[in-house]
Amino acid sequence: MPNFSINIIPDHKQVTANEKESLYHAMVVAGIPLKASCGGKGTCSDCKVLVREGKVESLTTGMLTEEEQKQGYMLACQCFAQSNLVVEVPEESKLTEHRIVLSNNPAGGSIAQNGDERIGILEEEPERAGEGPDIPLFKRLFLKVPEPSLDDMEDDIGRVIRVIRKETGVELLRPTLNVLLTLPNILRQAGWKVTVSLAEGKGYKSVEITGVEPGHIEQKYYGLAVDIGTTTVVAKLVDLESGQTVGIKGTYNKQAVYGDDVITRIIHTNEYPDGLRELRKVVVETINELIEDLAKEQRIKQTDIRTVVCAGNTTMTHLFLGLDPTYIRLEPYTPVVNNIPAVRASRAGLNVYPMAWVQCITGVASYMGGDVTAGVLVSGMAFAEELTLFVDIGTNGEMVLGNKEWLISCACSAGPAFEGGGIRHGMRAMRGAIEKVRISPGGAKVTCCTIGNVPPTGICGSGLIDCVAWLYKSGIIDRSGNFVSDVKSPRIRDSAEGKEFVLVWSEKAGRFTDITISEAEIKNLIRSKAAVYAGIRSMLQMVGLPVEAIDRVVIAGGFGRYINIRDAIDIGMFPDIPLEKYSYVGNSSVKGAKLALLSKKARDMLEEIAKKMTYLELSIGNTFMDEFVSALFIPHTDLGLFPTMQKR
Amino acid sequence: MPNFSINIIPDHKQVTANEKESLYHAMVVAGIPLKASCGGKGTCSDCKVLVREGKVESLTTGMLTEEEQKQGYMLACQCFAQSNLVVEVPEESKLTEHRIVLSNNPAGGSIAQNGDERIGILEEEPERAGEGPDIPLFKRLFLKVPEPSLDDMEDDIGRVIRVIRKETGVELLRPTLNVLLTLPNILRQAGWKVTVSLAEGKGYKSVEITGVEPGHIEQKYYGLAVDIGTTTVVAKLVDLESGQTVGIKGTYNKQAVYGDDVITRIIHTNEYPDGLRELRKVVVETINELIEDLAKEQRIKQTDIRTVVCAGNTTMTHLFLGLDPTYIRLEPYTPVVNNIPAVRASRAGLNVYPMAWVQCITGVASYMGGDVTAGVLVSGMAFAEELTLFVDIGTNGEMVLGNKEWLISCACSAGPAFEGGGIRHGMRAMRGAIEKVRISPGGAKVTCCTIGNVPPTGICGSGLIDCVAWLYKSGIIDRSGNFVSDVKSPRIRDSAEGKEFVLVWSEKAGRFTDITISEAEIKNLIRSKAAVYAGIRSMLQMVGLPVEAIDRVVIAGGFGRYINIRDAIDIGMFPDIPLEKYSYVGNSSVKGAKLALLSKKARDMLEEIAKKMTYLELSIGNTFMDEFVSALFIPHTDLGLFPTMQKR
Ligand code: FES
Ligand SMILES: [Mg+2]
Ligand SMILES: [Mg+2]
Repeated sequence: MPNFSINIIPDHKQVTANEKESLYHAMVVAGIPLKASCGGKGTCSDCKVLVREGKVESLTTGMLTEEEQKQGYMLACQCFAQSNLVVEVPEESKLTEHRIVLSNNPAGGSIAQNGDERIGILEEEPERAGEGPDIPLFKRLFLKVPEPSLDDMEDDIGRVIRVIRKETGVELLRPTLNVLLTLPNILRQAGWKVTVSLAEGKGYKSVEITGVEPGHIEQKYYGLAVDIGTTTVVAKLVDLESGQTVGIKGTYNKQAVYGDDVITRIIHTNEYPDGLRELRKVVVETINELIEDLAKEQRIKQTDIRTVVCAGNTTMTHLFLGLDPTYIRLEPYTPVVNNIPAVRASRAGLNVYPMAWVQCITGVASYMGGDVTAGVLVSGMAFAEELTLFVDIGTNGEMVLGNKEWLISCACSAGPAFEGGGIRHGMRAMRGAIEKVRISPGGAKVTCCTIGNVPPTGICGSGLIDCVAWLYKSGIIDRSGNFVSDVKSPRIRDSAEGKEFVLVWSEKAGRFTDITISEAEIKNLIRSKAAVYAGIRSMLQMVGLPVEAIDRVVIAGGFGRYINIRDAIDIGMFPDIPLEKYSYVGNSSVKGAKLALLSKKARDMLEEIAKKMTYLELSIGNTFMDEFVSALFIPHTDLGLFPTMQKR
Repeated sequence: MPNFSINIIPDHKQVTANEKESLYHAMVVAGIPLKASCGGKGTCSDCKVLVREGKVESLTTGMLTEEEQKQGYMLACQCFAQSNLVVEVPEESKLTEHRIVLSNNPAGGSIAQNGDERIGILEEEPERAGEGPDIPLFKRLFLKVPEPSLDDMEDDIGRVIRVIRKETGVELLRPTLNVLLTLPNILRQAGWKVTVSLAEGKGYKSVEITGVEPGHIEQKYYGLAVDIGTTTVVAKLVDLESGQTVGIKGTYNKQAVYGDDVITRIIHTNEYPDGLRELRKVVVETINELIEDLAKEQRIKQTDIRTVVCAGNTTMTHLFLGLDPTYIRLEPYTPVVNNIPAVRASRAGLNVYPMAWVQCITGVASYMGGDVTAGVLVSGMAFAEELTLFVDIGTNGEMVLGNKEWLISCACSAGPAFEGGGIRHGMRAMRGAIEKVRISPGGAKVTCCTIGNVPPTGICGSGLIDCVAWLYKSGIIDRSGNFVSDVKSPRIRDSAEGKEFVLVWSEKAGRFTDITISEAEIKNLIRSKAAVYAGIRSMLQMVGLPVEAIDRVVIAGGFGRYINIRDAIDIGMFPDIPLEKYSYVGNSSVKGAKLALLSKKARDMLEEIAKKMTYLELSIGNTFMDEFVSALFIPHTDLGLFPTMQKR
């Protein structure tokens, strides 16, 4: 088969492909970041390209509009080269490579006044979380070891262990052979004043003594807390002595080119013999780039990072370690492992101190991962009297309900709408995204606020929620999400895909087309919000409690950062309880990972949470489906559940 | 410097040496086994050779007799080549390479009727040793894992762990990443019927799940119990399923060419930059040869050996793992480590399954190693009401006194006499060694029995004890070990080294000279026996108990196999209590290692024993020296301590 040469513009990268390999695949393999929510199945239309020169065969035009087809757009995943090509990748198809810059104290904070304090305490002073020894996963300790004498002839390592026990309260300690090989001379040359290194690895009940160095070593040592999100990977560099976060960086998970959601990625591992290896490779690369950036920024050696804690959903941790995720997707949805013992960094492929332990926070089920366990820890709910609802919304919605007595959790497939996926003008919550919408009655006036206050290029999840809430409140759509036929407005129009509403005219937009939302998209969003609400109600049903019993709602995740809770309640996504009961916890996954780095007590709590948390599989029985169908209205079939809306 | 070529006869091996390298060193490096109790210091005269051709420079003739010097004998360790040479190594200077063949049920057994039963029970049925789970250090287990369903969605490894827990009672389990990588497919392809491998490593509190294989694996798997003795290394191959010893082999520790006792070997590591590495290398080689032999004999793959337990004195375990033994020898005698965590076989250098855990039984002090901990376990004394004295005599005498309430231990430098060292005609307890001596009053008739019933070539430890006992009982020597001047016998004569007694005339001997024992050698032996007795008495003093309080004496070690207890009591080496209280336990070091292979209970007991056992350093205070001086008589200054002798 001939290999055709493809020139990718405007970046002028060269790629080769034969006639059996889609342009999308050729570009992904060559490391050219292309959007592809569906993972190359021809159903998301993310991978639009323009073939400027040469001949291609296209299997389907998929979701491309007539307009787009006329302009020459094609789906890269459906195109096969028949000659050498020049292919243009338009801005909107590029998977932005630009790093997400996260402030040390990320914006967001508490939405309402109430409820955030506990979180703050847990984050900043982990040692207050409980009694007993509280040591980081890696620790250097300066020791004055008592010299041996005929009255005290204990062995060298025994003397060291004795002092470590006294200083840390850690009972079970285990030296490496390397430490024993140098120990006697170091002790004596250093006049029995040494610095020991202690490393704890999950699953290993004894703490490892990994180093003994002469004298008082002042060199700093760091831990890395990583949130391996399906979309975004965020890493915090933590000074393990002070407990301070000294650097934080985020970037898109490079796996995104293989599909937006975990299911698409799992399918990729099944369809390509090398699929699992590829996915593992790119997520490890993603983390390694963050490590490199953090180390450069802080001017530290990467090998000064001595321990790593990752929090991620179950698919992410499987892919990170190369574990087969196949059965996560297949009924009865059993992962290989929820509680993964620590592995060495060299084995995990992370470019930190090679013998550093890398651990993943324990998850509960295939769709309830360690990121949620971490979130529950950070929320403080597992040790509180109040009944708390924890909500982390992304492509999957994960929800946990409970208090110090019990915890129940469930996951619902919210679909990609909240992440801006599956919506023609949807986008992630980034610069240029409409994150706030206000519509006057009848649609006479529409106000849109964008992230970064720049001309809008699309609409993100929180904007979509606002949009639906205000289309309804302004009387443009009805409770089912249909456009009300007697409302006339130039913004309401017919298109090839049915009725749509123009949010921003192209003149005002940061792009060449109008920014619209269609009736189908509105219904799509209603299904998403219904899934979330039905999940919450299913858990309440399970424990026989009404919505009003919820004392506190903690919202986590990137999506929650911009969300307007009032609007989310108004469309019937969240329970209609007083606004001040809501709070926003930020990226609780990486926060929990940081706590695990620093505190034994936190690590014990994480294990306790994972053990205590029951998982409610929503596909069993009819409760969820009944709740879902009832929630397919704005705000709900049962208006009694939404007294605030009812009052208006 | 020119390199001279040396032809070693009668074996015609070629060695090269320059003028700065002793013949001894050149031969050792070339792997030619030469005796050298003193490790090449010129003080033992073991390394006698005959230079047949060429020119050498000799620093000293050391302990060579005039006769030997006349015959042309030289000390290889003191000789330096000045030209090419032909060197003859006489039979008596060769370190016998022939393997010690040990029967599965070694001879010896109980000396008296009493006391051996408990030992038998512990050895053959370790599971009776206590309650609770009792699993070998490595175990294969066939499991029927319950299939997952929507009612039971536990993760794959969780399901496996659940069944292992039920079947073994082991709570803490930790899968390797390798197991997790293949687990989901193996479980499903094998219809949820799998064989798991479980490996326990000392210091790691959780048991490792090291393998999951489809179906019922019937292949056998083995453990290796090793006694790393200073002189001899013995290995038992144990079927871990049945608990049966299927093979046993012993050989000389190849370190013997670097000196007979631990001190000489420690000095070697200090004097040669590569000394520690050499000593480690040769003991690992020694064990690997046993492994190879055992595997060949039993027709198994060496990789079927999945776990190894070593018992040895503290110096031996240090040298085995390459740990610096320097401070074992220097006051206040602190080893690097008494309780060494398990290391992988690949790291230890043993040619078994590379990931097999290799563990050394925990010792107590520099001169109280894991071999004694093992012996105490096998003796059963640590869990008995009766007061037991455990005695393991070699170059060092190790003694433990106690019962289930307390254990006290001490070590005395008995010197090499009991191993046949430092005595001109001394030899180890092997074929041709005089092991029993009877002398009629005045020395008229002397009867000697040899091991193997062949003409005598030397005298071993038990023979020496007999010899001294009967020289005394026949009136030839007095209580101080001096020849009684008015006894006249052709066997008593003067030599260059003073008075000596002819045990065997050369005509009857398996060699060309008379077999004699000199007054100096008798006094040497009296010092040795005095050290043992003084050690025993020092422990009794410590706990304020009289000799008669001892209910049971358990003798361990190769030396104990041939010893005549009556004679040993008569010279004042052992306490004068009824003979039936004495029993012989054989190689309790390897027996204890075997128990550790098979039984968790035994492993726990070993740790408990090591923790419980106090070590009495005899060099502190005056008790031992006073006791020693009082014991420098036959049987003792205080005859009241030896009522049996007093009665005669
Ligand atoms: S005299 Fe040569 S080795 Fe001892
Ligand atoms: Mg997340
Ligand atoms: Mg021994």
